Amino acid sequence: MKFIHTADWHLGKIVHGVHMTDDQRHALLQFIEIVEEEKPDAVVIAGDLYDRSVPPTEAVELLDEILYTINVKMNTPIVAISGNHDSAERLAFGSSWYRHSQLYIHGKLTKTCEPVRIKGVNFYCVPYAEPGTVRHLFEDDSIHSHQEAMKRITGTIAENFNSDEPNVFVGHAFVLGGKTSDSERVLSVGGSGCVSSDLFDAFDYTALGHLHSPDAIRHPKVFYSGSLLKYSFSEAKQNKSLSIVDMQEDGSFNIRYRSLTPKFDMREISGVMEELLDPAFYQSQKRDDYLKITLNDEGALIDPINRLRQIYPNVLHLERKWDLTDLRRKNSFTSVKDERKSELDLFETFYQEMTDRDFDSQKQDLMVSVIEAVKKEEALK
Amino acid sequence: MKFIHTADWHLGKIVHGVHMTDDQRHALLQFIEIVEEEKPDAVVIAGDLYDRSVPPTEAVELLDEILYTINVKMNTPIVAISGNHDSAERLAFGSSWYRHSQLYIHGKLTKTCEPVRIKGVNFYCVPYAEPGTVRHLFEDDSIHSHQEAMKRITGTIAENFNSDEPNVFVGHAFVLGGKTSDSERVLSVGGSGCVSSDLFDAFDYTALGHLHSPDAIRHPKVFYSGSLLKYSFSEAKQNKSLSIVDMQEDGSFNIRYRSLTPKFDMREISGVMEELLDPAFYQSQKRDDYLKITLNDEGALIDPINRLRQIYPNVLHLERKWDLTDLRRKNSFTSVKDERKSELDLFETFYQEMTDRDFDSQKQDLMVSVIEAVKKEEALK
Repeated sequence: MKFIHTADWHLGKIVHGVHMTDDQRHALLQFIEIVEEEKPDAVVIAGDLYDRSVPPTEAVELLDEILYTINVKMNTPIVAISGNHDSAERLAFGSSWYRHSQLYIHGKLTKTCEPVRIKGVNFYCVPYAEPGTVRHLFEDDSIHSHQEAMKRITGTIAENFNSDEPNVFVGHAFVLGGKTSDSERVLSVGGSGCVSSDLFDAFDYTALGHLHSPDAIRHPKVFYSGSLLKYSFSEAKQNKSLSIVDMQEDGSFNIRYRSLTPKFDMREISGVMEELLDPAFYQSQKRDDYLKITLNDEGALIDPINRLRQIYPNVLHLERKWDLTDLRRKNSFTSVKDERKSELDLFETFYQEMTDRDFDSQKQDLMVSVIEAVKKEEALK
Repeated sequence: MKFIHTADWHLGKIVHGVHMTDDQRHALLQFIEIVEEEKPDAVVIAGDLYDRSVPPTEAVELLDEILYTINVKMNTPIVAISGNHDSAERLAFGSSWYRHSQLYIHGKLTKTCEPVRIKGVNFYCVPYAEPGTVRHLFEDDSIHSHQEAMKRITGTIAENFNSDEPNVFVGHAFVLGGKTSDSERVLSVGGSGCVSSDLFDAFDYTALGHLHSPDAIRHPKVFYSGSLLKYSFSEAKQNKSLSIVDMQEDGSFNIRYRSLTPKFDMREISGVMEELLDPAFYQSQKRDDYLKITLNDEGALIDPINRLRQIYPNVLHLERKWDLTDLRRKNSFTSVKDERKSELDLFETFYQEMTDRDFDSQKQDLMVSVIEAVKKEEALK
């Protein structure tokens, strides 16, 4: 049984003011070609189909078109869950009708999780849910963290399933660590919503969405597919791909990766102006990529962004390596960690880095009273 | 062949701050009972299923539930179009999947209008569209008004259809007049988006949505079903019903009406405080209806709204019959019609009625320049 694992399409995403819908269409048309070549038995989309609960109508139309092509025209079952960026209710509309053609969209978490069974493999689909939702659903007041919530969910599933069959978990969560990470460590960062990978031990394959890099976790059975495209410069060096999973009847599997070529890549380049504007350099470049440019020049430059855009039309972000404010800011952020400073000092440093205005005595007085009020309140707790 | 004609559900509507979703569910559950009793061959919903392009999630869930019950559980075909309150794109999502169970949702207007054929009757479904959209779609620059747009649409349909079969038009528009209204008159109010009823002459039955009263038009073949519920006090005296249409093979039909009983009626009552707070009066009243109360008392009253709400919890609007401002306003609105007044005088009267502020010389000067600019612009046309 072969399935394609993908996630985090984020349709309707706007990156640095640029609507990504055309880029997403470009990537999804390649996705369709890959489906055509691979002829998988199912496509699994592990959440964040949209970038926000109310996506722009172009994104709605794009999703409709792509799902229709894969599911109806190409007769391929699709298993999808909502992620934290999707609106569970909106995504779920109509899902009862979709099932007849094996389009299984899971919007809202339900207490009992009946698997979607495709060619002998059970897909347990768990949409993203806040701990509060899980606490309410399971009527269990002890659930407060994502770790506790997920433990309850996977535990309930594993109680009932047939471990003689291949079982795949489809989820959208921030899963930490490989086999070696202990749950204590995970729980200590529980506030950030992490869950421990050992919660998925009972499953043969765990298909995750949420983190955008396929390398976000190193684990023999728990995987992120990564996002459809690079959606921030922090992802500039990541490989974006789809995971093609060939699963045997005993639950063992192998994975191949197929990459998607973006319409415009998202890259970082740096250099001095003269160099970047030199044909000898830029003729070797794909000039219309989405670029973050770091200028290494010192001193004043006249209108650098417009000069650069004449050569590189899609510069999305420009930074100066020797930007003094920047340097000052970096230093100050380091100093914020210095806990020997008083709250007032810390705030003053912060204020001065964030604004061009004086932190005058009136502001100081105000801040002192705020700090005192907070301390009083904390003391009363 | 029997179909139920309904429209203007406006799911997600908020009336005077009250979310109507529970009221809508109450009415739609009666609707389902009527479908069960009548066993129609189709349900026709002529637009404005939602109250806004992005309805609250409760409304999304309610629509999903009701359509699923009627269409899938009760195996009844549904024909629906988007109205001016719906988002065509959002409503259309998934519509390709719904067809297999004969749920036909038409979101966006298309150039060719293939009818939905149910038991020998052709339903031509025309979602609401702005004239500009129709102009663009038909590549016809002469289309500027709703009248011109609708003429083009109905004309194109009538060119191609088989008039030996019963043909039903399903639309969402502001249709004026009976047989006697001439299109000139209609065109003279063209700015308000009206279209003339004679555009639908070729159809055996025209099922409309948009106006909320089933009495909005008196015409032998063109009908509004009216809205699901009363959604404003201007509708307080309207009857809300569903139209049950029995259509013969020759296109002749008869209509019956089945009314829906709202959870809380929307009514207007008036009287003096003492009378309204007298058990002898209010015990004869359905006290939890949505009320607009007009108080006939003269002079000052202490906290009338809260005293009334102790008896009538759902007072949505309170008016004083002898409110002086109100009287003044009524008079002034009469005078606005006096066309011998200059634009400046008219505006001054309007300004003084709408605000408590002086229409001083600075404002007068500004207004004079605005009026002059508009006149100049009009002269250039």
